[in-house]
Amino acid sequence: MTILRNGEHIDDLYHGGMKLIQNAASPCFAVDAPLLADFAEIKTGSRVIDLGTGSGVIPLLLSAKQPDCFLVGLELMEEMASMAARSVTLNGLDERISIVCGDIRDAAELFGKAVFDVVVSNPPYYKTGAGRKNIDPLFAVARSEQCCSLVQLLDATACILKPGGEFYMVYRAQRAGELFGEMSSHRLCLERLRFIQPYADRPANLMLVKARKHGRGQTQVLPPLIVYKAAGEYSEEMVRIYGRDSLFGGNAHR
Amino acid sequence: MTILRNGEHIDDLYHGGMKLIQNAASPCFAVDAPLLADFAEIKTGSRVIDLGTGSGVIPLLLSAKQPDCFLVGLELMEEMASMAARSVTLNGLDERISIVCGDIRDAAELFGKAVFDVVVSNPPYYKTGAGRKNIDPLFAVARSEQCCSLVQLLDATACILKPGGEFYMVYRAQRAGELFGEMSSHRLCLERLRFIQPYADRPANLMLVKARKHGRGQTQVLPPLIVYKAAGEYSEEMVRIYGRDSLFGGNAHR
Repeated sequence: MTILRNGEHIDDLYHGGMKLIQNAASPCFAVDAPLLADFAEIKTGSRVIDLGTGSGVIPLLLSAKQPDCFLVGLELMEEMASMAARSVTLNGLDERISIVCGDIRDAAELFGKAVFDVVVSNPPYYKTGAGRKNIDPLFAVARSEQCCSLVQLLDATACILKPGGEFYMVYRAQRAGELFGEMSSHRLCLERLRFIQPYADRPANLMLVKARKHGRGQTQVLPPLIVYKAAGEYSEEMVRIYGRDSLFGGNAHR
Repeated sequence: MTILRNGEHIDDLYHGGMKLIQNAASPCFAVDAPLLADFAEIKTGSRVIDLGTGSGVIPLLLSAKQPDCFLVGLELMEEMASMAARSVTLNGLDERISIVCGDIRDAAELFGKAVFDVVVSNPPYYKTGAGRKNIDPLFAVARSEQCCSLVQLLDATACILKPGGEFYMVYRAQRAGELFGEMSSHRLCLERLRFIQPYADRPANLMLVKARKHGRGQTQVLPPLIVYKAAGEYSEEMVRIYGRDSLFGGNAHR
């Protein structure tokens, strides 16, 4: 298949029968992306951007969930942006999803101010120097804040979002205090919150956050999402979100 | 019994065999106070203050939990402060618990700056004008912010707490976004968070919060506390916190 480059393969996403180009040697999406796509509610006709789209999995899942919206995926790393753009083409979605190779910190210059109804992001989770070290630049950029800090992400979000627009994010639960403080100073009002626990009796390791630019409403705190009901066995809700026991089909074109 | 005034009665708290004077015509403690006392970890020798102590139930429960600490209960309403002080005497705790009738907004003038190791509070949950209306001033002050707003409470907390000191609070989950933003601007770093859900499948209505003055650490998000496992039937954890199926003995001196 000419659409694939060296080392790449095509995975099946059960949602909407999508196909996704990935490369085992570059960052592949983890549980966070489908959880965020499931959590985000996209209204008809919305203009949506995914900041740091990687392989483009979030725009693909959102386009299957909401057939009437226009999506942009912004990705810094050329290699990832190229894969994402070819996945969009592979799914015949060039009219609806636009992949842009560029820096989150330049988002307002690239797209303009107050132009999006929704911003979604599954950003790097670790401060530079924290977490596992990655020498490969693709992994390093995806995992650590070296190219975009939390504050820079929120600066961009607050700038390109329309007043009243919605921001959906998946993030490390351990950075909750820092995130909520920064969101508040960016006037991104916390509207909905759902923590993700690996098991029912363990502390949360991730969280799903919905905020509204210049919002003034209350916060709805949903019951946590539990990933595993037993070791290696997904909860019913995870099975629903994944579409089957695993997000991938047995017929991945590897 | 001369310690009781008109309309008052004595309730048994199972924790440490404490007795508590209450009056059905004034605010009596609800589930929030024992949950907060259970959540708060008081180190040996700590100097602790409860802002808005009401009947004094929180200092009494904390004194049973940590026999080596000094506790202050600050209460605006004279009638409530009097009941709290007499409960302290009734339990023979005058050496360890001091009840002060005064305004939270004057806490720094009353006690000095940076003098407490721990601040606890179960403050009014509703903005003035929101929630149920109460004509009785005792109930109105306990429920609505007319005498102390969230910001004023955090101003006082940040002022009287030592740097590195701990703040424990129980609050409405619906005000989570607002609380976290204000805590962040007061440099009260969110260290531990536990939401309280009435049932396992319902959104949280309350939350337990631990913050540290000038802290820089991460946030631990515990699994939620579930109040009821079925209608009218407490969860195992609630039974543990309450000490028995109900916090009150059958022999309340009413």
